[in-house]
Amino acid sequence: MENFSIRPIIKEDLSQVLGLIRELAVYEKEPDAVEIDEDDLTDGAFGDPADFSCLVAELKDQVVGMALFYHRFSTWKGKSIHLEDLIVTEKYRHQGIGKALFEAVVKQAHQQGLKRVEWVVLDWNRSAIDFYKKYNATIFEDWRTVQLDQENLKKFANASL
Amino acid sequence: MENFSIRPIIKEDLSQVLGLIRELAVYEKEPDAVEIDEDDLTDGAFGDPADFSCLVAELKDQVVGMALFYHRFSTWKGKSIHLEDLIVTEKYRHQGIGKALFEAVVKQAHQQGLKRVEWVVLDWNRSAIDFYKKYNATIFEDWRTVQLDQENLKKFANASL
Repeated sequence: MENFSIRPIIKEDLSQVLGLIRELAVYEKEPDAVEIDEDDLTDGAFGDPADFSCLVAELKDQVVGMALFYHRFSTWKGKSIHLEDLIVTEKYRHQGIGKALFEAVVKQAHQQGLKRVEWVVLDWNRSAIDFYKKYNATIFEDWRTVQLDQENLKKFANASL
Repeated sequence: MENFSIRPIIKEDLSQVLGLIRELAVYEKEPDAVEIDEDDLTDGAFGDPADFSCLVAELKDQVVGMALFYHRFSTWKGKSIHLEDLIVTEKYRHQGIGKALFEAVVKQAHQQGLKRVEWVVLDWNRSAIDFYKKYNATIFEDWRTVQLDQENLKKFANASL
């Protein structure tokens, strides 16, 4: 087990963070899904207001993992944290890095007095599901994610059905 | 068909909006799920920064529907809109009010140059699914919502697994 540290993102991390995002997209069988670039990440992380928070795991001067999250508002529970991505590069998995990142997010949510952390998982990603179950996370079998993409936003923005 | 108008929320709408949120929770078979109150909604809608945007449908001086939404950040597509709730009170359904609210949100996303609007639907809510399919929305069968609740946030914030 090698030593790593968890710390907030700085601008110099952005290209490595984008690399992790692309690595996850390949793992999730969507290699061409990543349309954002470093400028989008810069605006998102360091704009005023920022669009998200990001913690990175650093090991031997390299960014080997990250947790990217932001606030949402539940009309049942109030302000919550949404964990958009939790990624550890393949070479450094199973060393407690994902666990440290996840628990750092949990800690922030608790310190902010929030009632919920939420995220999504692919139903075939057994290792992720097993990991989340250790924290007594609830996996909802009956909710489905729905998305309207840019093409249909354009189509229906000006043409009422 | 009676005339209605779509407009941004004002403070005087909050108690009726909370009533709609509670009505939806009953419909979704979770009557006790709503833990927020009018103060939480006031802070969320009118705080600086606000936690969400809300459009309401007004008919005969009554709030009969609402769409509550906020920004998220997708590491694939960049800034997006999440539609947290789209509600029309039972008495006034099937009159185009939900459609007008939904299309107003779509229009805002398009005008902001966003690439995605996202939301969730219960897999048994056939009428909602049929409605969303008219807009070519994609329903993802393999993603699952996961949540860590307040009790487990407290438990794991200070006790590493």
